[in-house]
Amino acid sequence: MVIRRARTSEAKAQRAEDLLAAAEALALELGGVRFVTLAPVTERAGLHRTAVRRYYESKEELLLGLAERGYRQWRDEVISRLRDRFNLGPLDVADVMTEALVSLPVFCDTYTHISLKLEGDVSIERARRFKENAFAAYDEMVDALTRASTMSKEQVYALGATAGAAAANFWQLAHPTATLAELYKQEPRWGHVAYEFEPKLRLTLRSTAVGLLQTLPAPPDHL
Amino acid sequence: MVIRRARTSEAKAQRAEDLLAAAEALALELGGVRFVTLAPVTERAGLHRTAVRRYYESKEELLLGLAERGYRQWRDEVISRLRDRFNLGPLDVADVMTEALVSLPVFCDTYTHISLKLEGDVSIERARRFKENAFAAYDEMVDALTRASTMSKEQVYALGATAGAAAANFWQLAHPTATLAELYKQEPRWGHVAYEFEPKLRLTLRSTAVGLLQTLPAPPDHL
Repeated sequence: MVIRRARTSEAKAQRAEDLLAAAEALALELGGVRFVTLAPVTERAGLHRTAVRRYYESKEELLLGLAERGYRQWRDEVISRLRDRFNLGPLDVADVMTEALVSLPVFCDTYTHISLKLEGDVSIERARRFKENAFAAYDEMVDALTRASTMSKEQVYALGATAGAAAANFWQLAHPTATLAELYKQEPRWGHVAYEFEPKLRLTLRSTAVGLLQTLPAPPDHL
Repeated sequence: MVIRRARTSEAKAQRAEDLLAAAEALALELGGVRFVTLAPVTERAGLHRTAVRRYYESKEELLLGLAERGYRQWRDEVISRLRDRFNLGPLDVADVMTEALVSLPVFCDTYTHISLKLEGDVSIERARRFKENAFAAYDEMVDALTRASTMSKEQVYALGATAGAAAANFWQLAHPTATLAELYKQEPRWGHVAYEFEPKLRLTLRSTAVGLLQTLPAPPDHL
């Protein structure tokens, strides 16, 4: 293992990013961010065991950094799927949102932990910075979807809240522990319900998007 | 404190129920099931500290019992709101579902923990019994809503999955830690988003219910 020292602020930012990438890789390998701890992350990033504290005060702060990065990835994945499309209807918007989230398994997993634990367990200043950055990325995503579609900003905003909640819960259902996975082998009808992450998310988001046209009508000047 | 012993199987079942009621009361007082531990629950139920192990092997098993009871409460709260109503449209079904969940804060809280941790951290036989009982209560709720409404069984079933996911995530957002609550005081626009549990849940469920008529059409013989 090569022990590296960050000598400039640029290098320091790079180390902080390396630690997030290592945390993401470990979350995928271990089957969930709840199994991620600081020591293996630090080792994976090639830093000395004690160096991690210069970047993240706690495991919660590291994982909140991962969540913050996840919001930017969510925005980027949505925007890259929009390209130069426009006039998208609610079903297309729902599909873009579904496919973006499916491409980000660690973010779907982390989403549960944000409000359950992470944003409440760091300092108030770190929580403030998280909220600012997460809302900024979210708002950029909403703006891009609104420009590319026939939906209003309020409708897209509401769809995003359902998208996060559904992706979070359905992801956990689809990633059972070893004991539960064994039970699903014995009772495939339960496994079927638990594992169908993408079709359930797509159905939920398509239904919500279509329904929002009726429950949250766009102002008359939108179209 | 009176130390009581369960001498019959009926008395034993009553003690197990007493422990669940004590866990529910503590979850409300402490601000979340994640703060509930076995010793205070046992004390609250008036049992000897070591007696709890005769009823629940672990905190996870106790809280899974609370979740199981929560599914029965969800069914009962829905059915009691249906009384002799019939021909309900999707907006009414969504409102019944919303109001039932709002009346069950500890269940909304526990819902996050079921798939995140509880059902995967008990023995396979306990997990099997939980799934059987939870699905049985859920199916009875779906059947009652289908009989009372113009929605198909498949539509109500899908609505229930969104309802659970949305209630779970929105409940956690609405119950921040002390640090985060202080941040929301300083930045009321964020608090506004976090705290509006019932209106967000209602909008999500109304939108999903209405949209399901289009995304998951009822078979022609349903009406």
